[in-house]
Amino acid sequence: MIIVMKESESKQSALNVVEHVKELGLEPVLLEGTERNVIAVIGDERIMDEHVLNAMPGVEKVMPVLAPFKLASKNIRGQSTVQITDDIEVGGKRLAIMAGNCAVETIETSMATAQAVQAAGGNIQRGGAYKPRTSPYSFQGLGTEGLEILTEVKKQTGMPIITEILDPRHVESVAEHADIMQVGTRNMQNYELLRELGNIKKPVLLKRGMSATIEEFLMSAEYVLSSGNPNVILCERGIRTYETATRNTLDISAIPVLKEMTHLPVIVDPSHAAGKRDYVPALAKAAIAAGADGLLMDVHPEPPKSMVDPDQALTFDQFTELMEDIKKIAEAVGRTV
Amino acid sequence: MIIVMKESESKQSALNVVEHVKELGLEPVLLEGTERNVIAVIGDERIMDEHVLNAMPGVEKVMPVLAPFKLASKNIRGQSTVQITDDIEVGGKRLAIMAGNCAVETIETSMATAQAVQAAGGNIQRGGAYKPRTSPYSFQGLGTEGLEILTEVKKQTGMPIITEILDPRHVESVAEHADIMQVGTRNMQNYELLRELGNIKKPVLLKRGMSATIEEFLMSAEYVLSSGNPNVILCERGIRTYETATRNTLDISAIPVLKEMTHLPVIVDPSHAAGKRDYVPALAKAAIAAGADGLLMDVHPEPPKSMVDPDQALTFDQFTELMEDIKKIAEAVGRTV
Amino acid sequence: MIIVMKESESKQSALNVVEHVKELGLEPVLLEGTERNVIAVIGDERIMDEHVLNAMPGVEKVMPVLAPFKLASKNIRGQSTVQITDDIEVGGKRLAIMAGNCAVETIETSMATAQAVQAAGGNIQRGGAYKPRTSPYSFQGLGTEGLEILTEVKKQTGMPIITEILDPRHVESVAEHADIMQVGTRNMQNYELLRELGNIKKPVLLKRGMSATIEEFLMSAEYVLSSGNPNVILCERGIRTYETATRNTLDISAIPVLKEMTHLPVIVDPSHAAGKRDYVPALAKAAIAAGADGLLMDVHPEPPKSMVDPDQALTFDQFTELMEDIKKIAEAVGRTV
Amino acid sequence: MIIVMKESESKQSALNVVEHVKELGLEPVLLEGTERNVIAVIGDERIMDEHVLNAMPGVEKVMPVLAPFKLASKNIRGQSTVQITDDIEVGGKRLAIMAGNCAVETIETSMATAQAVQAAGGNIQRGGAYKPRTSPYSFQGLGTEGLEILTEVKKQTGMPIITEILDPRHVESVAEHADIMQVGTRNMQNYELLRELGNIKKPVLLKRGMSATIEEFLMSAEYVLSSGNPNVILCERGIRTYETATRNTLDISAIPVLKEMTHLPVIVDPSHAAGKRDYVPALAKAAIAAGADGLLMDVHPEPPKSMVDPDQALTFDQFTELMEDIKKIAEAVGRTV
Repeated sequence: MIIVMKESESKQSALNVVEHVKELGLEPVLLEGTERNVIAVIGDERIMDEHVLNAMPGVEKVMPVLAPFKLASKNIRGQSTVQITDDIEVGGKRLAIMAGNCAVETIETSMATAQAVQAAGGNIQRGGAYKPRTSPYSFQGLGTEGLEILTEVKKQTGMPIITEILDPRHVESVAEHADIMQVGTRNMQNYELLRELGNIKKPVLLKRGMSATIEEFLMSAEYVLSSGNPNVILCERGIRTYETATRNTLDISAIPVLKEMTHLPVIVDPSHAAGKRDYVPALAKAAIAAGADGLLMDVHPEPPKSMVDPDQALTFDQFTELMEDIKKIAEAVGRTV
Repeated sequence: MIIVMKESESKQSALNVVEHVKELGLEPVLLEGTERNVIAVIGDERIMDEHVLNAMPGVEKVMPVLAPFKLASKNIRGQSTVQITDDIEVGGKRLAIMAGNCAVETIETSMATAQAVQAAGGNIQRGGAYKPRTSPYSFQGLGTEGLEILTEVKKQTGMPIITEILDPRHVESVAEHADIMQVGTRNMQNYELLRELGNIKKPVLLKRGMSATIEEFLMSAEYVLSSGNPNVILCERGIRTYETATRNTLDISAIPVLKEMTHLPVIVDPSHAAGKRDYVPALAKAAIAAGADGLLMDVHPEPPKSMVDPDQALTFDQFTELMEDIKKIAEAVGRTV
Repeated sequence: MIIVMKESESKQSALNVVEHVKELGLEPVLLEGTERNVIAVIGDERIMDEHVLNAMPGVEKVMPVLAPFKLASKNIRGQSTVQITDDIEVGGKRLAIMAGNCAVETIETSMATAQAVQAAGGNIQRGGAYKPRTSPYSFQGLGTEGLEILTEVKKQTGMPIITEILDPRHVESVAEHADIMQVGTRNMQNYELLRELGNIKKPVLLKRGMSATIEEFLMSAEYVLSSGNPNVILCERGIRTYETATRNTLDISAIPVLKEMTHLPVIVDPSHAAGKRDYVPALAKAAIAAGADGLLMDVHPEPPKSMVDPDQALTFDQFTELMEDIKKIAEAVGRTV
Repeated sequence: MIIVMKESESKQSALNVVEHVKELGLEPVLLEGTERNVIAVIGDERIMDEHVLNAMPGVEKVMPVLAPFKLASKNIRGQSTVQITDDIEVGGKRLAIMAGNCAVETIETSMATAQAVQAAGGNIQRGGAYKPRTSPYSFQGLGTEGLEILTEVKKQTGMPIITEILDPRHVESVAEHADIMQVGTRNMQNYELLRELGNIKKPVLLKRGMSATIEEFLMSAEYVLSSGNPNVILCERGIRTYETATRNTLDISAIPVLKEMTHLPVIVDPSHAAGKRDYVPALAKAAIAAGADGLLMDVHPEPPKSMVDPDQALTFDQFTELMEDIKKIAEAVGRTV
């Protein structure tokens, strides 16, 4: 950590900081400058609270040198893979293609969708039973009934299930059905929920918060990891910016940045980023070209009849055509579908 | 709702939309333009899902005319006041000044702070027992012990308590102690929590999400209101922008905008917006000048020793001096402290 | 255009608006609603000023139906190509690869770079002679001398030149050397400059403003087009967001959005978006996968010695390797290099 | 400057950086850490280019310690005042109230407006002769004729003139009429223009760029200052964020932040921030309460007939009423009108 003192500040203030750092068991180095003093701290700065230092008299600013996360850090290991079933892992050479209805509606719709997804090369079925909706007057999902539909589809197709979890009280019941527990963008900093998910071993797909920095995103992953669950998959799904032409702005750079900072697998949700069906294929292809480990997409037999987010679901034909392109891009970057 | 068809689109697509609108019991008006067709819908459009319309063939975009919230709307009533105790209400002529330690630490610190706040003109004590922290390795709050400290201070000073609630499972136990249940920025769209708070009658202070639009903010208030609890206070606390000179960017315009859109009282948290003690007074004064109904502020006897957010807490002297200024500004805009 | 009246408003206010619209020669349709009145306008709304309507008594908001640009619109034609030389066009099947030093330094550096770029498959040389720098104390470019270096390199390699123009007074002299006149992000709304560039016929590469919406971006293109120069190439180069892990946030979605809205070619600058060499290849590949018509990149023989933006320039080896990947991705999406 | 080396990096890389720093005549201090090496640089780091350091092998990141501006810095002097006429200065105890038509239209409108502004307590007349418009099809201002109207009004009322300058070729002719040369938000980084304005002595009002950081804002001021013109006034006018309820988001915090960082006077434009007449008074009052040195506002006898931005101009009555409130707020914070 680097502690920069104010320009007009006496040396005594700097010495007080030096003293405080020593008390914490770290080694301070006082650098007396021409305009101001600076204190560099040697050792694991993560045991210090930068805000405390910031609040000390005479301190202008505090600059951490180390990233605040540990278990999510790239230094721990090269690249994690998260095992979903015996056959399917996320983070390996083969891409994980998760697709399905944004909200589970009926067994017929879910089954038809899963079959179309599987035929086109998808390997994980997506379906929301509990839906976080901006309006209290909107459809909130089928709940348990939705989970049972997904389980029935799994029985018939063999496709594992990814579904969203909203409430720490539902962790146990959702985990009975789900193969991947999805934490949505609105809950990325719902720490009570993250801690509960750290207590189980089921893979957790953590979506980036709508305005979370990459560092905050990794700190939320750290909540799950540090609670004991190593099976975390990250999902970039677009961030909030001033641009309104798309629902969110897909932060495509997050892929190389995350690949440099963490060993956790990274997938992309182009559907929620675009918010509009016609833009989804371009984003999906870009994500794979940029190095993503997979995709999470909305697909529906008749999008206008979808109960949630109908404007962003791909039709079966669109999905099938996209998958053909994805196969070519995957090959171009050394991956397979 | 206004439905704009694509330019190249046949009249048949427009007629299909007209038909769909009629089936919903609303009245469509087809406007045949020179370049494209437009359909205007008469009636309460809130029963239609704009995304469904957006997904219909030939539709370019859908523009809602009405705001999606109802109970929070200004049309319902002029200005709400939320009663906290027999003596204190939020939204009336007298400003609500809520101040205290960001996190409850010890009975001594809480008591000293409450007394200083009260002496300077504050009327509600603030203190966090459950703290949502970005890092799992940071201090997470004293929990129940913290609530008991606040209750003890209330006994001795008579100051009602505002404290944060993070988990739907804690609603009952926190409500036993708190006079105002605070929902933090990270939980503004934690709908499970909002619904639970709608089931009690305790006043709820809802902080704006870090990147929530004003409309989304009101939709979250609508969750609480529509679940049966009319006692909602809104709190602007800064939004996330590209500017990093402050912790967040206080959206001062939110005050007049909210005053136009809703009857709910609006207060401001200048401490979390600024993130730096020295900027807090300017923001607090601006908020009152702009028409806020009150303030929520961090105060601490020795800020550098505060366990959470030490860099933004005011000292007792700073708070006292600020309150003198606030009194003058309040008078200038026809309010009292 | 759709004009929404306030809820409490008398019918007379609506009639005044109706009258105003008629005076402009357009056809208003008054829709009397249950809660409020709405006026739909039939005809080319672009002759009306929405702000004037917005300012009329009783008007709550005005919603334009048509995009405000005309000549840039997709409706004009399917896809433009901009001819640079007899052999090179931007917007056709073959990608345009523009690469070189961010700032021209010496004839040796420029020549070495151009040869390396050409050998790897690039076809246009990039080099800045006039540099817009955040600090007045930074290197501001070689000016005319830089232009002469580029011209010498063009003589020897045959590679056309793209270089930046900052000042309307330099248009003539820069146009003598440049094959493509680049307008940087800081000048996207420098209308005096855009108008001057509309008076010549040289291709103009217009970079998106740091916080420009896609609509504003197209309005700036419209300045050049409506002044008489049809040869405009758009360049997405990252927008400003709260995320600081990259210099800017590449708005990858802008590619499909622009492809839907305009016939103008769209290229991407991954170097300025990333701001960090190691992230450039992922962004470049993503851009081509998403449908971009080309790339603009910083390359330097010894990046740490580059006088401007050394942290984002690719080495010759990195560029060569990237071009190999780009060829594969291009093929996967039906393009060539 | 603090240079952080990568974790896996050899000591040799750090020594290379040390060597480079020494060559620049600064003093490097190598801090060998447990996880990584860090180099602190003593001396005026502004002579080093952080990007060059960033690009050196093994460097992870570079953190500047000093602000990059010098002449704009608070360290130079306590508080500047900019003298406009013998009677009027900006930055002193008395607030500068600049108000008028967004665009000059006719002598009658300008005269009526100036008289109303003066009667209510305003002291500088605002009027745009050259207007930067998003659309090439919008009214672009009266040009020279507009300047002559302002001069005529000045003759009759004695009120000095603030007007916008767009083009470096107009500096001389505009300076003949204007008392304050206004640089708009779109030209904050038009360095050719800034340099020309540095060559004259007329006061320059520099508006913050739509997405400029405070540091970039001060760097643009530094362009004018370092070219020889010390008379710079800063103007906060709202920044671009995701929130669309207002035209821009007024960054009210910029006032205390700028007051801490620079000696230059700071005024606020609440009209362009709000974009809607009804929100302007709240923002104007907030600005003065937060410590602004003045205001720049749109006023028009009949706002719906204003040729530019009619939705944000105050009527004479609204302006007069607002000035009454401003006087009270000014007094509350120790200022006068």
